[in-house]
Amino acid sequence: MNLTLGDIAERFHLECRGDTDTAVNGIASLQEADSDQLSFLFNASYKHLLETTEAAAVVLRPEDATACKRPVLLANNPRRAQVAIAALFDTLPMPLPVIHPSAVISDNAEIGQRVAIGAGAVIERGARIEAGAIIGAGCQIGEASVLGAGSRLFPNVVLYHDVWIGAGGIIHSGAVLGADGFGFELDLDSGDIVKIPQVYGVRIGKHVEIGAGTTIDRGALNHTIIGDNCKLDNQVQIGHGTVIGKQTLISGCTAIAGSTKIGSHCLIGGASGIIDNIKIVDHVEITAMTLVSQSILKKGRYSSGTGLMSAKNWKRSIVGFSKLDEILKRLRRLETDKKSSTGS
Amino acid sequence: MNLTLGDIAERFHLECRGDTDTAVNGIASLQEADSDQLSFLFNASYKHLLETTEAAAVVLRPEDATACKRPVLLANNPRRAQVAIAALFDTLPMPLPVIHPSAVISDNAEIGQRVAIGAGAVIERGARIEAGAIIGAGCQIGEASVLGAGSRLFPNVVLYHDVWIGAGGIIHSGAVLGADGFGFELDLDSGDIVKIPQVYGVRIGKHVEIGAGTTIDRGALNHTIIGDNCKLDNQVQIGHGTVIGKQTLISGCTAIAGSTKIGSHCLIGGASGIIDNIKIVDHVEITAMTLVSQSILKKGRYSSGTGLMSAKNWKRSIVGFSKLDEILKRLRRLETDKKSSTGS
Amino acid sequence: MNLTLGDIAERFHLECRGDTDTAVNGIASLQEADSDQLSFLFNASYKHLLETTEAAAVVLRPEDATACKRPVLLANNPRRAQVAIAALFDTLPMPLPVIHPSAVISDNAEIGQRVAIGAGAVIERGARIEAGAIIGAGCQIGEASVLGAGSRLFPNVVLYHDVWIGAGGIIHSGAVLGADGFGFELDLDSGDIVKIPQVYGVRIGKHVEIGAGTTIDRGALNHTIIGDNCKLDNQVQIGHGTVIGKQTLISGCTAIAGSTKIGSHCLIGGASGIIDNIKIVDHVEITAMTLVSQSILKKGRYSSGTGLMSAKNWKRSIVGFSKLDEILKRLRRLETDKKSSTGS
Repeated sequence: MNLTLGDIAERFHLECRGDTDTAVNGIASLQEADSDQLSFLFNASYKHLLETTEAAAVVLRPEDATACKRPVLLANNPRRAQVAIAALFDTLPMPLPVIHPSAVISDNAEIGQRVAIGAGAVIERGARIEAGAIIGAGCQIGEASVLGAGSRLFPNVVLYHDVWIGAGGIIHSGAVLGADGFGFELDLDSGDIVKIPQVYGVRIGKHVEIGAGTTIDRGALNHTIIGDNCKLDNQVQIGHGTVIGKQTLISGCTAIAGSTKIGSHCLIGGASGIIDNIKIVDHVEITAMTLVSQSILKKGRYSSGTGLMSAKNWKRSIVGFSKLDEILKRLRRLETDKKSSTGS
Repeated sequence: MNLTLGDIAERFHLECRGDTDTAVNGIASLQEADSDQLSFLFNASYKHLLETTEAAAVVLRPEDATACKRPVLLANNPRRAQVAIAALFDTLPMPLPVIHPSAVISDNAEIGQRVAIGAGAVIERGARIEAGAIIGAGCQIGEASVLGAGSRLFPNVVLYHDVWIGAGGIIHSGAVLGADGFGFELDLDSGDIVKIPQVYGVRIGKHVEIGAGTTIDRGALNHTIIGDNCKLDNQVQIGHGTVIGKQTLISGCTAIAGSTKIGSHCLIGGASGIIDNIKIVDHVEITAMTLVSQSILKKGRYSSGTGLMSAKNWKRSIVGFSKLDEILKRLRRLETDKKSSTGS
Repeated sequence: MNLTLGDIAERFHLECRGDTDTAVNGIASLQEADSDQLSFLFNASYKHLLETTEAAAVVLRPEDATACKRPVLLANNPRRAQVAIAALFDTLPMPLPVIHPSAVISDNAEIGQRVAIGAGAVIERGARIEAGAIIGAGCQIGEASVLGAGSRLFPNVVLYHDVWIGAGGIIHSGAVLGADGFGFELDLDSGDIVKIPQVYGVRIGKHVEIGAGTTIDRGALNHTIIGDNCKLDNQVQIGHGTVIGKQTLISGCTAIAGSTKIGSHCLIGGASGIIDNIKIVDHVEITAMTLVSQSILKKGRYSSGTGLMSAKNWKRSIVGFSKLDEILKRLRRLETDKKSSTGS
């Protein structure tokens, strides 16, 4: 795709300072941009890179423009400008609305208009694929599941039975929605482990994106629910019956146990763990690798764990950690002695 | 499925108090049950919900019955009652024992009676599929692997070669059993990394359930072994040559390294990490997100990590954590000074 | 495969002490080896096992030979000997270089010499499969992706578009390379979450092994890059635009966020977390389950977290942890009082 800086300025109504005939054939970071690539300054703290960048031009805030020797496009929100401009160079393939002959589709499935279905995909009876949906090769759609209008499943996604995905959803490869929740009962008489039937399904709202390898279990006594506009990164695990509000973002490898309620507009850091049967209110932020072992009823930012240390010093600190109860006692004793000795 | 409370009481020999003609079309939690859904009180601490529930009826312990305004079914173990009653409303599809024409099955594979094989499944030579097994669409069964009688693989499960699964197993989608263990040797002469052949397989006992996206590696010097009745949640990782006893439950996203021995009847919390080459005895419980960095030779409950805090206070605590060795020293100094000053 | 000890000694130029006619039909650990299996002593601290092992023979260092009652093969590096000898007993199937009729291959894909493609695999247009590559059943190769010479994809691997894998790569089942990075922008005007196009791809070096269920995202402003000879275990997550040097080993379930730079020859322990936009230099070792929340600019060994404790004592310690800031203050007060009281 060959464009000039002027084309882009015009298309997105951005003020251009510099040669509008400059050729632009892609985007890149300030450090790595070639002389035909457009770059971006998102954060003033990287301003020094403007001096060395070889980018064809830089998209930046008006107040940062003077610091740049290269041509610039002025944008009040360079990140939003990236969203728009990057789309021009996106090579993401858009399949034609055709059904591959090797796909296996039940006669009792409902396939909407302009649906694309890839090679070897399987669609079971009672499933409904709404208009404009795209189903990648090797996907498995279980009985009575629903894929909303314009949603896209990348290859090798599995939906079990009774899994509904709202309009505009994006599900990445290897994701598994609707597997049985981890529900077992120990029979105290026989000592056996008995499986609890997971009779409910999964309900995903509109415009939800779900990352590669993420797993969302079906429920036992209620549906597992993910609200509109939620974004889940790769390898996230959502337990059975858990309910998540709207527009909550969950970073990669976070494990969320069952029957937990998480509010809207939360930001959950990567590799975190959230136990079962707790409640987290709206607008809660969890930092990376935090264990949430109790309900969070007040919005704010929460953490657990310890900081990074050299292994040598860390070994000493974990000894101290194991003595913290003793440390508090000894401290108290010293304080009492002092009091009594000074007679205060 | 339309039933009355009387039907259910009779079928499961539960005493019914209230109108036996009450229609029951499903089950649900006390908070969410509609007037035609049966609910359950598992734990007396939720007794207050009995006042507000709209459930058609509630299954509960005799001693809790008086607190309930709705019709009740008396059960000494409501969870066991759920297991039985929920099955009536389970919509889990049971495929007919047919082999889909698009499945690719080696002439040298052994297929038992009443086996169901889904579309596009591949079964390599020397594999044995025992009677009544169900293989979902897109599953891959490697050479000389064995799927026990009545076992079920959900779609897109991968078994490498020489992976044996006992009778009554349930393996969820995206699980991968028998991939190479993480075994490499640094050649000190050349400085190269050399791959150690992983020549052993995987042996899974009877009635084992394995969650979606869980990975169990094959062994280098012995089989990786999972004992009878073990239940593994989603996205669990089991390293090469690790051996796990009977009826141990492992929650989601737990990472277990190689050559470790874990006993029977253990409960391992979610997102935990267990290092390689250690031993954990029977009846050990590990709380969520714990790092097990040494052998556990005494049964009991173990933990690591820190509690949840506001990010602001947490930042202060991790500073203190890094000074714990110093704190102990300063404490000792104060105590010695006191001793000498008081001459004691 | 029936061999004698003499055959093996001769083949690998190892000195044999004992009956060269001893039959060897496999390898096993010292504890589990049968009388026809060869075993290994890698570490002198396991020397005591030499007394009880029933192995046909033991491969060990010359200095350990006298301690062994069984026949021995002398090797200065028994682990290297294992690499060579184990290969004799490896049952890993090597598919013939044939293309299964059910594979779906674009006319515009380039397929090299002696390539094996399994049942139901899909290869999109513009993809290039180099000589001797092996593609397992159910694999998905996206547009313009490249699989290097002699590389092997095990069944059900997914490569999105523009994902390049160097020569000699090994990718295990369920791995997903090239899914969209987790890039979203909150539109402060509308309050909506906007997806940032992930227009770059993934570049994997030569001789890289990637474990089952591992996910490596594509980049937004630069390619995600994994250097030559890197080895990634199962269920590792690599965020968008992250760059990793040569011969770095990453153990299972480690989560690495986006735009982070990791050096060469690093060892990253299992279940660790590394945040985004930081830098880690060469020769850094991270112990298991460590959170790397800042750049590491000095080579060495690093850790975070706490040690394993009984849950009872741990509960006391986490109380102390939450008071660490207060503990430091109280300690300081005692020290100041002492100073003033002693007039020093």
